[in-house]
Amino acid sequence: LLTDKVNSNSVLIGEHLFAMGINVSRVTTVGDSLPEMTAVFSDALNRSDIIISTGGLGPTFDDLTRQAVSQVTGRALKEDTVVLETIRGFFARRKAAMPENNRLQAQVLEGAEVLNNPNGTAPGQLLEFPDSKHDNKKKLVALLPGPPREMLPMLEAIAGRLKPFSGILQKRFVLRITGIGESLVEEKLRPVLEAERKLESGVVNFGIVASHDMIIDMKATVSGTDEMEIDETIKNIKKEFRDILGDHVFGEGRQTLEGAVGELLSHKKQTLALAESCTGGMVAARITNQPGSSAYFLEGIVTYSNTAKERLLKVNPETILAHGAVSQQTAVEMAEGVRSISGADYAMSITGIAGPGGGTAEKPVGLVYIGLVSPAIKEVFKYQFSGTRGDIRTRAANTALDILRRYLLNPKGR
Amino acid sequence: LLTDKVNSNSVLIGEHLFAMGINVSRVTTVGDSLPEMTAVFSDALNRSDIIISTGGLGPTFDDLTRQAVSQVTGRALKEDTVVLETIRGFFARRKAAMPENNRLQAQVLEGAEVLNNPNGTAPGQLLEFPDSKHDNKKKLVALLPGPPREMLPMLEAIAGRLKPFSGILQKRFVLRITGIGESLVEEKLRPVLEAERKLESGVVNFGIVASHDMIIDMKATVSGTDEMEIDETIKNIKKEFRDILGDHVFGEGRQTLEGAVGELLSHKKQTLALAESCTGGMVAARITNQPGSSAYFLEGIVTYSNTAKERLLKVNPETILAHGAVSQQTAVEMAEGVRSISGADYAMSITGIAGPGGGTAEKPVGLVYIGLVSPAIKEVFKYQFSGTRGDIRTRAANTALDILRRYLLNPKGR
Repeated sequence: LLTDKVNSNSVLIGEHLFAMGINVSRVTTVGDSLPEMTAVFSDALNRSDIIISTGGLGPTFDDLTRQAVSQVTGRALKEDTVVLETIRGFFARRKAAMPENNRLQAQVLEGAEVLNNPNGTAPGQLLEFPDSKHDNKKKLVALLPGPPREMLPMLEAIAGRLKPFSGILQKRFVLRITGIGESLVEEKLRPVLEAERKLESGVVNFGIVASHDMIIDMKATVSGTDEMEIDETIKNIKKEFRDILGDHVFGEGRQTLEGAVGELLSHKKQTLALAESCTGGMVAARITNQPGSSAYFLEGIVTYSNTAKERLLKVNPETILAHGAVSQQTAVEMAEGVRSISGADYAMSITGIAGPGGGTAEKPVGLVYIGLVSPAIKEVFKYQFSGTRGDIRTRAANTALDILRRYLLNPKGR
Repeated sequence: LLTDKVNSNSVLIGEHLFAMGINVSRVTTVGDSLPEMTAVFSDALNRSDIIISTGGLGPTFDDLTRQAVSQVTGRALKEDTVVLETIRGFFARRKAAMPENNRLQAQVLEGAEVLNNPNGTAPGQLLEFPDSKHDNKKKLVALLPGPPREMLPMLEAIAGRLKPFSGILQKRFVLRITGIGESLVEEKLRPVLEAERKLESGVVNFGIVASHDMIIDMKATVSGTDEMEIDETIKNIKKEFRDILGDHVFGEGRQTLEGAVGELLSHKKQTLALAESCTGGMVAARITNQPGSSAYFLEGIVTYSNTAKERLLKVNPETILAHGAVSQQTAVEMAEGVRSISGADYAMSITGIAGPGGGTAEKPVGLVYIGLVSPAIKEVFKYQFSGTRGDIRTRAANTALDILRRYLLNPKGR
């Protein structure tokens, strides 16, 4: 099926090209059909200066990229003896004979440069030829393999060849925001978005992307010809955004909530322990996904049963009896329990009903209590999340991380 | 940036259409540029019977899908008073006034049917018109919103309208495989793949997709005109694959390792407890992502520090001193500890070096011990995983789940 997998290569390639000042105008995904592929390549050659294709360089009958480009460019395919030896070598290092099929991967387009593949058998190919419509311009066609770990090194290897196509200067930033709705973000930022940022020589574009995990990305792209002006503009917009949104901004670029929490804990040299029920270890798994988290994360206890809450976290059985496992009282005792057992500076607890079953009129699916305990604080926050079991768990985990983050940022203000 | 996010709608739509016997020939992603968009729509109208677009129906200046389709089809856009009232109602239910911007979403193409949007403000639109090149054929253009939860109900609503375009019958299956390499899977299945499956009236296509988390999907698509023949063929191929691969097959379709483990534990009415170090709660988080997991999952203990291993899991400090926290001996004591504390039937432990720091010549990054303890078994498995911190953690988690799964399937054979 053509649509079996999402196309993650386009994201990787788009980022590389953007940083070079080259914009992607179109991404097309096409099946393993020679007529379809030649139609796409021929259309792309008409429209674009650079064509980067990924995939279809494998050793089987349905790997047709080489043939399609050969047809469209009129360049013959010939077996390259050096490439063939390289492929044989790849198998020899794995103590295997090269299957006869793989011979197909040694077929190189006439005049193409071969791009080495340290992570696989399919070499890439790079074609450069004069643009028939413009005297001084060239066109570039790159055939790269599909797996990202094979594709990316080649993309880096041809960076120098892409450089001449680089247009305007452009830079961008992404602010990561949580704890506030998309429409409110837009409303608060509107004065900045609407203030026409007249650069001497460029434009500013904004974009806002909200996801179902309650994280919002506010993006800005600034392009022009004057790098100093671009840098200054980015600095100013970022500051205005941050002034307006305050600590709803938890980071830039690819920062995560667990990353922000980890940096704050590291910086303050403080430690954390967790008692999770409905999130079942998700918060611990995310915290420990950070390299170096052993410096601040002591332990996590996932108590799915009531007896585990009593036995491991010293929750009073009478508390559960009187108020239920999903209650403010149980949340406090869970957090206090894991804090006293671990000796951590901060302890958090999460108990809720993730669904789809287990809800009642009084305690519906999505009800979640999050407890935070430190020497200076003892608080429980109550939420009613919506969505699937997965949504509720992710929202509870993100909210818990954000509560801790904001408390670490500003212990007195809360 | 056009390439900021992966296009997950194409996967969702492709699956829906496949099940109806309609194949997707091309997926194009294009930026918010009117000339680019009209070029794509006009090309698509030339080539295809059905065009489904997602996104660009929002209320802002860069939502251009309506305009692009209007230009290409020559149909004017007019404000629809019923749609306008529906949008006002959407805001009224949220006790908000409709921002003036949203008026744009009431613009409907001449002759288009409006598709209701219960989950957002942007209605979908459906255009049907005669194919100018074929007397008895029609073309269909659907404008759907970008967010999947808004898009999917509309896709289901227009299923009846897509039906007349349905071609051949086709069915498919996916077998999910782990614990064996891709090349070995291919080698073992080759006799089945190569045996030409001559159907009276159809074809069989195979595909194999390996991912970096050590799970392999073996797919087969059977298409033809005779449904009984298709069903029989699928049944036979599936059986042949399963006979060859045995318990390396952990499920079909969207089955997960934690789903397979959960079903086995449920079925046997047995319980599980976990002691995780390097995976930091990932296995517990995945196990508890299954609805109903509270029936078989008792508790998980994430011990990142040595003292937590000693205190919570009763690991002997001398064991850690003599052999280290990442050792066969510690893995055994972690699993025994959590089993005796929880009273679970099965207990697993995972301790390893996820990196990027912390490795030594003797115990390199990627070294992981996985322990499994039950009344009948006490085993530790040693692995050397490669990849990033995330890869190593995911591989360790998948491997632990698979060890348990295979042990539950066949307790005596191991």
